[in-house]
Amino acid sequence: MKVLVIGGDGYCGWATALHLSNRGYEVGIIDNYVRRFWDLQLGSNTLPPIQQLERRLDCWKGISGNDIELFVGDITDYGFLSKAMHAFEPAAVVHFGEQRSAPFSMIDREHAVMTQTNNVVGTLNLLYAIKEDFPDCHLVKLGTMGEYGTPNIDIEEGYIKIEHNGRSDVLPYPKQPGSMYHLSKVHDSHNIHFACKIWGLRATDLNQGVVYGVLTEETGADERLVNRLDYDGVFGTALNRFCIQAAVGHPLTVYGKGGQTRAFLDIRDTVRCVELAIAKPADAGQFRVLNQFTEMFSVGDLALMVKKAGTALGLDVEIQNIENPRVEAEEHYFNAKNTKLLDLGLQPHLLSDSLLDSLLNYAVKYRDRVDKRQILPKVTWKR
Amino acid sequence: MKVLVIGGDGYCGWATALHLSNRGYEVGIIDNYVRRFWDLQLGSNTLPPIQQLERRLDCWKGISGNDIELFVGDITDYGFLSKAMHAFEPAAVVHFGEQRSAPFSMIDREHAVMTQTNNVVGTLNLLYAIKEDFPDCHLVKLGTMGEYGTPNIDIEEGYIKIEHNGRSDVLPYPKQPGSMYHLSKVHDSHNIHFACKIWGLRATDLNQGVVYGVLTEETGADERLVNRLDYDGVFGTALNRFCIQAAVGHPLTVYGKGGQTRAFLDIRDTVRCVELAIAKPADAGQFRVLNQFTEMFSVGDLALMVKKAGTALGLDVEIQNIENPRVEAEEHYFNAKNTKLLDLGLQPHLLSDSLLDSLLNYAVKYRDRVDKRQILPKVTWKR
Repeated sequence: MKVLVIGGDGYCGWATALHLSNRGYEVGIIDNYVRRFWDLQLGSNTLPPIQQLERRLDCWKGISGNDIELFVGDITDYGFLSKAMHAFEPAAVVHFGEQRSAPFSMIDREHAVMTQTNNVVGTLNLLYAIKEDFPDCHLVKLGTMGEYGTPNIDIEEGYIKIEHNGRSDVLPYPKQPGSMYHLSKVHDSHNIHFACKIWGLRATDLNQGVVYGVLTEETGADERLVNRLDYDGVFGTALNRFCIQAAVGHPLTVYGKGGQTRAFLDIRDTVRCVELAIAKPADAGQFRVLNQFTEMFSVGDLALMVKKAGTALGLDVEIQNIENPRVEAEEHYFNAKNTKLLDLGLQPHLLSDSLLDSLLNYAVKYRDRVDKRQILPKVTWKR
Repeated sequence: MKVLVIGGDGYCGWATALHLSNRGYEVGIIDNYVRRFWDLQLGSNTLPPIQQLERRLDCWKGISGNDIELFVGDITDYGFLSKAMHAFEPAAVVHFGEQRSAPFSMIDREHAVMTQTNNVVGTLNLLYAIKEDFPDCHLVKLGTMGEYGTPNIDIEEGYIKIEHNGRSDVLPYPKQPGSMYHLSKVHDSHNIHFACKIWGLRATDLNQGVVYGVLTEETGADERLVNRLDYDGVFGTALNRFCIQAAVGHPLTVYGKGGQTRAFLDIRDTVRCVELAIAKPADAGQFRVLNQFTEMFSVGDLALMVKKAGTALGLDVEIQNIENPRVEAEEHYFNAKNTKLLDLGLQPHLLSDSLLDSLLNYAVKYRDRVDKRQILPKVTWKR
């Protein structure tokens, strides 16, 4: 079965592309390298050095014997996208090809507008490309748990049954996204839902939590296959950042009180969830929403875990509560459901001491590459 | 008090600009004339001929003594928008400046992408312009009742209290928009809500129903001030279209069963609602949502009313149930709340025989200008 991975050069995309290839899918990748371009612009870099995509693919071919076809271009260019779709003829498209950093989207007006137009237009183009010529193709789209915000009620998977004035309906779960980036994902969700309804497309929206970890079975198989790992204040995410901060002796940067609770998962579960979604596609006309995470932690608790694990490894780890650059509740109710992927067969890799140890050791190995000026947040949400 | 009306050359915008000017507000208009450009592209036209905007403004100055300052340009151009805002320094901005036709947005991929980027980027630019330099300025944004779709529960005004698993919260009302255009308005709503929350902006989202009628006190004061009235399948809306169809002897085009119930209001109430919203601004940080309509009718019932009124005037009126070009429920529950504008002081002009008579007579007066080829819908929602 042919699966096209859009954004296959990125953190989740690369791991997913290799995993699917390893599991017998015929994989293609679309990427425009803009993620690497943004690193250049920001002066940031990935903790481990990563190879050019073409070399990574050569290496994978040598190890696995599997070809991965590469299409270099931008899906906001419909002509390019349509040509790539016709050349590859995918049965499923996994769409990671969006600007995925909340701080990046909040840098200024230009970055907000770019994030929303890039993400919304790319996804619209994909919907039209599927509708026009591949109406049975299953769209597996990466959303985010951040679309839901922090409501004072349980977070369901995409829909909620509402009883109101003696009547009831199952409606899209209300969204309260917390950045221009998160908003773009909410826009996508509404657009995809509509396309499923009127054109009968089949789509799965994977509302993913914060991903941590770096090695999967495939990216860990050879140094040349290694995945990117971001530690900077713009593209780095909570747990990965804390481990790298611990490794270089930088205080762990907890924003505000640290009571913010979020949903998390190991990158080894990211790749497995995508595989599970592909293996059992949404029905024609169905907009299926799955919450893709395995555990919930407060940011403060995560920092404590990293401090404990780091100290056990002989690192000197401090926690620093810094002024929160975001506008968000620092103490709130958070209880999100995640049973649908478990029902599809996910066996979670829960956060363990051994994962923390390996991530910390990995960070220590590459700590000389860390530019400490990139660690503190520079982008603020406030006026 | 200075009020800037964006899209002030359009159907609702023009009537609103004159009304506010008449009521003592110091009015400015931004428009890029793209609505007239789309008429050219579609081969459609307004039923009554309308003057160039500059001439309309001269005429208004002669009649009222009031100046209305004009800024010709596109708000997706941030440089232009920012310059206009600094030149005018508005206390309130009324934002009608969006692509507002559902069929237009469904013509093809290009029109869908244009509608969403034009509307979303224009509104984002406006939010940033207000945030940067006019943080106290009240944004009055036109949304649409179509954002809600047709849920099986009562439609509240923007928010709904949800009880779930023993907890409760007041959350944004779930949206089920029915076209690429309606989706763009939902995207705007989320973006504006966020801007109010993080930057403390004040905004009112007017979720407007289908507007009918042509004359207001001001646009009816002189032939040169007359408003546009659309009858074509792309920009024309239900009741106005039916009256014009009756006037030219075209069967009334009811889509499908005609059981679609929608919210409606007289354009004389549109201008009054905007005035009421401006007079009592949203609080700093508040995203206030008001449902702006006065009555609910099924499309089939509207057609029957027009048939009756037309027949009484001696017109030969037939009703034709044509294949529905849209994908929508043709029989459904629909009960929307609209008390907030009434609480602010709105005294509705309910749909009356005299309004239908005057609209029908108006249509008869200009019926030679109707291009009958423009009446039937040509744009389909289906794959």
